[in-house]
Amino acid sequence: MCEANAYLVETDSKSGESNEILLMEAVDKVEPDEDGILLISIFGEQKFIKGHIHSLSLVDHKVYIKQ
Amino acid sequence: MCEANAYLVETDSKSGESNEILLMEAVDKVEPDEDGILLISIFGEQKFIKGHIHSLSLVDHKVYIKQ
Repeated sequence: MCEANAYLVETDSKSGESNEILLMEAVDKVEPDEDGILLISIFGEQKFIKGHIHSLSLVDHKVYIKQ
Repeated sequence: MCEANAYLVETDSKSGESNEILLMEAVDKVEPDEDGILLISIFGEQKFIKGHIHSLSLVDHKVYIKQ
């Protein structure tokens, strides 16, 4: 199965370091709209996140979202 | 490996039917910016596509892009 984990990427304004906060595991569907992104897991769990897709790293099973 | 195929989704304005046009196989990285989306395959091939991410279906290994 090729589900991914979705992470929120936050950049510390002082240090410039990036943190990854796990939003949802086992994400199957990702559906962006104007206000944010709907994440749907392989179990049917849904989560709506304000933000946009920053990048995908599919071989690493990672979806990065930024606010 | 969990690379995906990237498709351009086109909707026929007359019939309303959607067509999927294969843009790139074996996509690893997807990096949206203001003007479009950079696709990078597992082989290092790069392709820049004007458009935005319409949706992802990760279990089906599909990235849908719309212009």
